[in-house]
Amino acid sequence: MRIPILKLHNYLLVSIQIDLDDQTAIDFQEDLLHNIHKSGATGVVIDLTSVDMIDSFIAKVLGDVVSMSDLMGAKVVLTGIQPAVAITLIDLGIHMQNVATALDLEQGLIKLHQELGE
Amino acid sequence: MRIPILKLHNYLLVSIQIDLDDQTAIDFQEDLLHNIHKSGATGVVIDLTSVDMIDSFIAKVLGDVVSMSDLMGAKVVLTGIQPAVAITLIDLGIHMQNVATALDLEQGLIKLHQELGE
Repeated sequence: MRIPILKLHNYLLVSIQIDLDDQTAIDFQEDLLHNIHKSGATGVVIDLTSVDMIDSFIAKVLGDVVSMSDLMGAKVVLTGIQPAVAITLIDLGIHMQNVATALDLEQGLIKLHQELGE
Repeated sequence: MRIPILKLHNYLLVSIQIDLDDQTAIDFQEDLLHNIHKSGATGVVIDLTSVDMIDSFIAKVLGDVVSMSDLMGAKVVLTGIQPAVAITLIDLGIHMQNVATALDLEQGLIKLHQELGE
């Protein structure tokens, strides 16, 4: 299955509400990059509120999505990272450096507005 | 699978990007009503841009969702209804009366703002 990507003005909104398996994560990466290209979005919010668990592969894919989107000119903010996910990431030694984060979707959009100076 | 529901301020956003089978539609109806109750949302935008086809059952479920949400105090706007879907609905004799519609997600949010006077 594909993760739905919503376009709102210049931004893309994604809420991941299923368990991400490896193939879904890779499909998502591809879909999102195509969507950025097609829509000319300047910012992306990926909401992880409903993600209870993350492994090193998914963390890598998410980190890659951020770098790739950045290359294409779209700033990504990850929102709603749960305590258990944050603990796992740090325990795995994955620091998601240079990745903007925020508490929830609203805060993520505010952060994008600020960072993009719009 | 469940259709993701995003909360943005007082509104819920839903983009249906899969073929709706009967069970998914019923699950969606239930999820949305629970979400309205939990979040206290005053408005809902359901984006149907990616829906190519609709049958009378799905149309009925969508119509019911609008009426049920209305009872719970949340105004629903359907957006992005495609030509083929509009043709099918009218051919089936389903008029979706009293259902607010708009061209896309942005217009749907503007419509909610206007109708709710916020």
